[in-house]
Amino acid sequence: MKKDEITLIKYIRERFPLSETIGVGIGDDAAVLKLKENTILTTDLMIEDIHFDLSYTSFYHLGFKIVSVNVSDIYAMGGDFKGFLFSLGIPQTISDDEFSELFDGIKDALNYYDGFLIGGDLSRSQKIILSGFAVGETEKPILRKGAQPGDFIFITSFLGLSSAGLNLLKNLSEDSKKIIRSIRNFKKSPDKILNIEGVNEVLERHLMPVARKPDKFKHLAKAMMDISDGLLIDLYRLCEENNIGAEIYIEKIPIHPTLISVANYLNTDIMRFILSGGEDYELIIVSDKLEAQNFNLIPIGKITDQKGIYLIDPHKGKIPAKPEGWQHF
Amino acid sequence: MKKDEITLIKYIRERFPLSETIGVGIGDDAAVLKLKENTILTTDLMIEDIHFDLSYTSFYHLGFKIVSVNVSDIYAMGGDFKGFLFSLGIPQTISDDEFSELFDGIKDALNYYDGFLIGGDLSRSQKIILSGFAVGETEKPILRKGAQPGDFIFITSFLGLSSAGLNLLKNLSEDSKKIIRSIRNFKKSPDKILNIEGVNEVLERHLMPVARKPDKFKHLAKAMMDISDGLLIDLYRLCEENNIGAEIYIEKIPIHPTLISVANYLNTDIMRFILSGGEDYELIIVSDKLEAQNFNLIPIGKITDQKGIYLIDPHKGKIPAKPEGWQHF
Repeated sequence: MKKDEITLIKYIRERFPLSETIGVGIGDDAAVLKLKENTILTTDLMIEDIHFDLSYTSFYHLGFKIVSVNVSDIYAMGGDFKGFLFSLGIPQTISDDEFSELFDGIKDALNYYDGFLIGGDLSRSQKIILSGFAVGETEKPILRKGAQPGDFIFITSFLGLSSAGLNLLKNLSEDSKKIIRSIRNFKKSPDKILNIEGVNEVLERHLMPVARKPDKFKHLAKAMMDISDGLLIDLYRLCEENNIGAEIYIEKIPIHPTLISVANYLNTDIMRFILSGGEDYELIIVSDKLEAQNFNLIPIGKITDQKGIYLIDPHKGKIPAKPEGWQHF
Repeated sequence: MKKDEITLIKYIRERFPLSETIGVGIGDDAAVLKLKENTILTTDLMIEDIHFDLSYTSFYHLGFKIVSVNVSDIYAMGGDFKGFLFSLGIPQTISDDEFSELFDGIKDALNYYDGFLIGGDLSRSQKIILSGFAVGETEKPILRKGAQPGDFIFITSFLGLSSAGLNLLKNLSEDSKKIIRSIRNFKKSPDKILNIEGVNEVLERHLMPVARKPDKFKHLAKAMMDISDGLLIDLYRLCEENNIGAEIYIEKIPIHPTLISVANYLNTDIMRFILSGGEDYELIIVSDKLEAQNFNLIPIGKITDQKGIYLIDPHKGKIPAKPEGWQHF
């Protein structure tokens, strides 16, 4: 890419206009937003070869995902997403098409979540670096803290899909990887990779995850967090925050049918995907109200006095669980 | 470093506690702050071998600087700095001492600016990546937009020091670089490198710049920005924002005495440091009130109808200036 910084910022700014009633966006020293009582702030970093692999990930996917992973943290606090700042490190070898694809992905995600790109920074770097920063607002934040013994633990949907998708992607042929890179809408694309039915859903969940908005049930939540690193490790973190423990009823955890096919194909333990696979961006909700089930929340366990996470298996009984998951070191 | 992520986050969280009256800090999905009407948001990225060189930069310097460069953008909007989020990519080869040095620098800078570390992200990476996000608040933001023909252009202090410091640092012996890396307080350290009097001030300005708070004079500003990439390029950006131009009176720009010694030593044009050297983090203030001088602001030019930046030299007359400076591509 031969464009200079001023040209690139001009391009980004023109693609992401901000109405003056909302605030000040790209192009000043900093952005300005008018927000409700509580400002919610979060940041997530994605680095080439650590968090993603360009052999099967397109720049469009990256743009979409860096928004989703940040928005997920805003939603996990019970907040409304408002604005996104985006710092980008890229090699000069990136093409103009790749650059605009990246911003296509950001734009589509921002449209989906109804938020605005309001700022960022741009730099050369050897590897691609995406650093996202999301801002939201809420009248009442829902923290990890607040869970008590006896409370029910709910999740929003199937787990392990992203992790299954990642493991499949790593094992694809170069030709299949190329096809995957070209897909922007997995729901509308032929679902034929490896002859696994429903495979697009697991690939999409890894490449273009969507954050879950808890609006309909957040009034029931005493504590909440998103599952970014894996159910066990994230639940462990929530429990540590409250100085409590949890029991998970293995048979209560729903298993997505495609996960069975993927686990068979890869000859892997399906529970590893479900319990320790990261990046699903589903939510863990702790509530003392079983009526949460009316909002499609799935009860999978209970908060206990006893510290530690235990799996309750109908055959094997109570097993202490290791809080494994995606650790960044 | 052999510590896992949970241990590292615990270490950071314990060093940077946040009182609950302020909000929610490190350890939840996102941070929560209660802010005034206008939330100010900014981000700046620093990447190893692009923005800094570890041969003469310590981890302490890096920590201090990543806070300063972000706070500078908040101040340049007329805002009060409140919170800092910090995403870090580091190789596993980093030592525990280097890791805590980095956070010493962040802590000292946050104490200086009276703000809190409220969140972040942590990842492995080949090169060191520092991605800072600063949050502030203000009742009335001061934008780049607002300058009009006839307005005066002021700067807050000497320019070119950081750039002179950078050029010196690149030319030091390995032994001198090592000494520089060990300095945390340049004001209290012997000022003897290369026998240039006052050299510590230019080195400090590059390694540990301090953001200028415009509190005393911001009521006079119609437009404001910080000088991060160089006077000419940043003034050009401000002018473009207003569809106007500017004249700079060369003889009005103050020259720091140490700059003369450094330019002599390096056999460089002193005006290059002053006009196009970046990272001084002084402010450009546009005001129609000459009384701004009473606040130690230095008038260096005027806003004009005619677009473009012109230098007015007492000997050579009016010269069109190229808006050169630090461009990131």
